[in-house]
Amino acid sequence: MDYNRREIKLPEYLGRIYTELHKGVLITTQGDGKPNAMTISWGALGIDWARPVFTTYVRHSRYTHELLERGGEFTVNIPFGEADRKIMGFCGSKSGRDIDKFAALGLTAVPSLSVAPPAIAQLPLTLECRVVNKGEQSIDALTDAAKDRFYPAVDGVRDTHTIYYGEILRAYILEKA
Amino acid sequence: MDYNRREIKLPEYLGRIYTELHKGVLITTQGDGKPNAMTISWGALGIDWARPVFTTYVRHSRYTHELLERGGEFTVNIPFGEADRKIMGFCGSKSGRDIDKFAALGLTAVPSLSVAPPAIAQLPLTLECRVVNKGEQSIDALTDAAKDRFYPAVDGVRDTHTIYYGEILRAYILEKA
Repeated sequence: MDYNRREIKLPEYLGRIYTELHKGVLITTQGDGKPNAMTISWGALGIDWARPVFTTYVRHSRYTHELLERGGEFTVNIPFGEADRKIMGFCGSKSGRDIDKFAALGLTAVPSLSVAPPAIAQLPLTLECRVVNKGEQSIDALTDAAKDRFYPAVDGVRDTHTIYYGEILRAYILEKA
Repeated sequence: MDYNRREIKLPEYLGRIYTELHKGVLITTQGDGKPNAMTISWGALGIDWARPVFTTYVRHSRYTHELLERGGEFTVNIPFGEADRKIMGFCGSKSGRDIDKFAALGLTAVPSLSVAPPAIAQLPLTLECRVVNKGEQSIDALTDAAKDRFYPAVDGVRDTHTIYYGEILRAYILEKA
């Protein structure tokens, strides 16, 4: 199956992206020649250093964290039209260290144009991103209740998020050719 | 003059906010009982810790930086309809340490509902925000060219940005009553 990539203007799709992000979207990274997708429901879209940027937060424990550190590239994969929510459920509860999620779910990887991780036919609204900056999510400003809610201490360690700023190199919707 | 605040759903206005941000919007802080507005054209809208968040980047040298450190609250003031661009030009080139920008421009401060800094009648699309997290914009990942473009060294010091994450407490458009 071939796919066309219909380029989009970001401002026209921000509302939809934000609404979908609330419900859960995927970010896909690549390592050892294989893609891996993780569900996210936090993130931001904006402008930094005069570039369009997607910001994503990834816990240190995640396989996606390891792949972002190695590859520095990701795609954001967003439903457009009907979405199969079990994809997000699966990719939010399994680790790519243990299982090939693309194979398990029958996800169709479509080659990206500017980055190594692929797009996904089943979640056709696609942002291709390259990490241009990163930081650590400081939790000092959180209340103790919020710290315990989002970062419960396990053996004295709180599994905090790294903030990755990905320049949006391309934004498009996959359509069957 | 009285104003009504017409509450808005963020997803419906993100495209417009993003487009205006590109051209320049204001953030308003408050100190010593007086508001001060600064022009920004970088920023992001998203979800962090399950809350709607506006992220803004403010250089250490700015008066707004000092007021955010003291007050921890800001409004974002966005044109809706026709915009007077000289407001953004003025607020992007003068410092609130030297001049009362509201008085100089005849800006109409309209009391906010949840934060100390006011809304501005002339830029009626308003986000009321409280800082819930902050970090430093790491410039290690930038190329030397980008470092020199965005952070030229003056007497050996690069005037970097602090990243303020403001929870969006209210979003509305001011309308004449």
